[in-house]
Amino acid sequence: MKANPGTFFEDFCIGQEIRHATPRTVTVGDAALYIGLTGSRFALHSSDEFARRLGLTAAPIDDLLVFHVVFGRTVPDISLNAIANLGYANCRFGVPVHAGDTLATRSTVIGLKENSNRETGVVYVHSIGTNQRGAIVLDYVRWVMVRKRDRNSPAPEAVVPNLPARVSAAELVIPETLDVAGYDMLAAGSPHRWADYQAGERIDHVDGMTIEESCHTIATRLYQNTARVHFNQHAEKGGRFGRRIVYGGHIISLARALSFNGLGNAFRLAAINGGRHVAPSFAGDTIYAWSEVKEKVALAERADIGALHMRTVAAKDHPCADFPDTGVDGKPHADVVLDLDYWVLMPR
Amino acid sequence: MKANPGTFFEDFCIGQEIRHATPRTVTVGDAALYIGLTGSRFALHSSDEFARRLGLTAAPIDDLLVFHVVFGRTVPDISLNAIANLGYANCRFGVPVHAGDTLATRSTVIGLKENSNRETGVVYVHSIGTNQRGAIVLDYVRWVMVRKRDRNSPAPEAVVPNLPARVSAAELVIPETLDVAGYDMLAAGSPHRWADYQAGERIDHVDGMTIEESCHTIATRLYQNTARVHFNQHAEKGGRFGRRIVYGGHIISLARALSFNGLGNAFRLAAINGGRHVAPSFAGDTIYAWSEVKEKVALAERADIGALHMRTVAAKDHPCADFPDTGVDGKPHADVVLDLDYWVLMPR
Amino acid sequence: MKANPGTFFEDFCIGQEIRHATPRTVTVGDAALYIGLTGSRFALHSSDEFARRLGLTAAPIDDLLVFHVVFGRTVPDISLNAIANLGYANCRFGVPVHAGDTLATRSTVIGLKENSNRETGVVYVHSIGTNQRGAIVLDYVRWVMVRKRDRNSPAPEAVVPNLPARVSAAELVIPETLDVAGYDMLAAGSPHRWADYQAGERIDHVDGMTIEESCHTIATRLYQNTARVHFNQHAEKGGRFGRRIVYGGHIISLARALSFNGLGNAFRLAAINGGRHVAPSFAGDTIYAWSEVKEKVALAERADIGALHMRTVAAKDHPCADFPDTGVDGKPHADVVLDLDYWVLMPR
Repeated sequence: MKANPGTFFEDFCIGQEIRHATPRTVTVGDAALYIGLTGSRFALHSSDEFARRLGLTAAPIDDLLVFHVVFGRTVPDISLNAIANLGYANCRFGVPVHAGDTLATRSTVIGLKENSNRETGVVYVHSIGTNQRGAIVLDYVRWVMVRKRDRNSPAPEAVVPNLPARVSAAELVIPETLDVAGYDMLAAGSPHRWADYQAGERIDHVDGMTIEESCHTIATRLYQNTARVHFNQHAEKGGRFGRRIVYGGHIISLARALSFNGLGNAFRLAAINGGRHVAPSFAGDTIYAWSEVKEKVALAERADIGALHMRTVAAKDHPCADFPDTGVDGKPHADVVLDLDYWVLMPR
Repeated sequence: MKANPGTFFEDFCIGQEIRHATPRTVTVGDAALYIGLTGSRFALHSSDEFARRLGLTAAPIDDLLVFHVVFGRTVPDISLNAIANLGYANCRFGVPVHAGDTLATRSTVIGLKENSNRETGVVYVHSIGTNQRGAIVLDYVRWVMVRKRDRNSPAPEAVVPNLPARVSAAELVIPETLDVAGYDMLAAGSPHRWADYQAGERIDHVDGMTIEESCHTIATRLYQNTARVHFNQHAEKGGRFGRRIVYGGHIISLARALSFNGLGNAFRLAAINGGRHVAPSFAGDTIYAWSEVKEKVALAERADIGALHMRTVAAKDHPCADFPDTGVDGKPHADVVLDLDYWVLMPR
Repeated sequence: MKANPGTFFEDFCIGQEIRHATPRTVTVGDAALYIGLTGSRFALHSSDEFARRLGLTAAPIDDLLVFHVVFGRTVPDISLNAIANLGYANCRFGVPVHAGDTLATRSTVIGLKENSNRETGVVYVHSIGTNQRGAIVLDYVRWVMVRKRDRNSPAPEAVVPNLPARVSAAELVIPETLDVAGYDMLAAGSPHRWADYQAGERIDHVDGMTIEESCHTIATRLYQNTARVHFNQHAEKGGRFGRRIVYGGHIISLARALSFNGLGNAFRLAAINGGRHVAPSFAGDTIYAWSEVKEKVALAERADIGALHMRTVAAKDHPCADFPDTGVDGKPHADVVLDLDYWVLMPR
């Protein structure tokens, strides 16, 4: 059998190490496409000049583009046949990535738990993305539901890793050369510094972005993410939803791009504490988003930069002036598609 | 309020200076996407070798891509909520832009006039795009109709700037190092020099290009143009047209790309004298174009280059062999979507 | 007449040499778009690091992107009005192309044959793509059916070139500096070397990719291929199929990208022996593919690299586990859209 049929639950064992294929040189071509597909407009990722004033050599690659490329490497080995991408934890962004850097990903299986239906199981993977010098650019855990090859295969001993509810502010990686003394608020497009945000504050990001079939599939192919549910209408027309599902990471990117309007100085996505794709998204959906400041943390060694622990909720076909949220019954609002918990950095 | 709700007529005053956000480094990634989205094939913008034979260091960024990026910067401050983009005047392209240059835009409000309905007003803005060395890459005036926040706000004193009907040929910027001695007509793809065109001559550009929803939205996001009518189907389905409107600049780009077939040696768009988006365009429309030579002007200090004052008309779902035009009643033909008046440079 | 109406059968004569317009500098922007539009994930074209370990200076441009750019140059002179792209032969890839190289194409007419209906004729063209140093990057023959301008024009003497059924393995160009000693099978994503494949072996590439109207038109514009049937829905709605036809080369690219799953170490497409676009493809089609190893040839002067003579068949809306093929009646299966015969290189 020369073709990769994807992996099944039985193919994983605790401690298994996987070096994923297809190292990927990220370029200004990828960066342009990322802007074209998401509408992102954070100044740091848009302008070499802006980046140089902050002590970087050039505009770094958007944090989420790094995420998608690192994540994309893992799909053929982990989630080609995944039923659901269940969660992320402890996701920290490392050294900045620049055009010309080559990213690769390796993973370790750190958890396995068969589901009671014996048809499926949950696999926990710790993945590390590195650049061509071996420096870590991203480090995260995710867990996915994977089908068993054979219902009657014995269940492995259940191992569920102990994962932090959030990355601690002390663990956030601040690029060493970064110096926000030269930060230009006018160029950045927002007058609001870290000091201007308050825990508990909610922000409606106002704008909406409609997803086209081409846009999400170009994005997902760009990341060389091969999960089948995104690309094959012929197969999906007979599937659960009758149509292709948008890669959840594309929704994260749209939510982050929309969040510029209200969080324009959140120049770095420093960590993702957790994220839930509450409901699938499809072509034709219009994505809106709102955010809540969960914590506001001064960083011990950086008087110039502050961290905001944010939660951003994306909803489809639902403008977010009313902040659609999880109800008192604990159920997410029917229009919510994403609930993302993360850290951003801002000039203080 | 952390999110930008856009500006209203009352927010502008004569003499107001605005430095727009999000400096943008333009790259070969943007240039590739521009070709992929418009089909442009002018040799100067396609080939570093062709450009070097003309004394440039590399292929310059397409003039209209420069226009869209410079224009895009202004949208959040000027036209996020604009009802209509009414016109352009006195638009001159400056120094060539190369991959790696970072563009920024600043504007001055030079005219204000409330409309008689008291609901809206017209804002005239003089915008200047510069590169990272401060050299001007584009300089233009545009005017937009903007809603008032409050119908009862007092009207400002009406100031309507005196704008030239056209840029004079003497004002056209010819890149200093440009030397067309090495111009290769075969490589350029057209045998027709400046000398071969006559004032009054009409050219049917023959080809048609159908617009897809993804194509115009990717283009418009690439320019970080955030005007809401282009992106949000959920909101627009209840709007004036029931659907997203194509950014008028995308139509200009398509018309210019189509005009290659007949104007293949018009290697530089030197100025836009004026332009009218006669009717909106939507996904599914097929754009055709024809042009008319309005004037033919030899340039005082350049015996090798001539200028053509052109008018290009784009029509939708209407091949232009019959040159659809403004009728004797002064009304544009029902299929016309764009009427653009501009200068191009050609080897003599 | 300033616009190019395209050429007719009468416009060609044996021995005619054509230098095609629009030299094209290929960049990392094109490479990123190519990945985004096709999902290609061969390591050599994805990673500068992987390429350097094989003795190249950086990741070369995907062979098929080179093909499309070289081919695209010829369209305005050869096939703007072509009724059908009938075949390819003797197509050999030459020196690797890197980002920054500028490609140009020249052609010689080597065959002409009027069809018995006197309405059309077949034109055979030998085309050579070169880089800015004049080195050959691609060399091939294709033949197209072209309309006559006037049914009553006299038929030229029929000349049908003698074309090889396949490129001989000895003619395959192996990049001089290429050294597969450093080839990393894990990074490449497939454990199967040349030695693991057998003549007669069939491989189902499993995955399917649905074509969107935007994706194929962006790809085809990127190559500056101007053939009208791909872009103009207004004209095509009255044409043979009532809709735009996907550029056949896009199907070749999708089939090659899909073939990664089973041929992951086929790091270089070295030659195309022949190819038939058995049926047209349209937006909405889902492309699947399977391949057959036709021959396995050791290369005389390279003990480290082997060549596989492959046949890849693409079908629409038909998963290829059953290898849809030409029937005993000699007719291709109704779902087959492409039958491509080619050589790839693999580490032995």
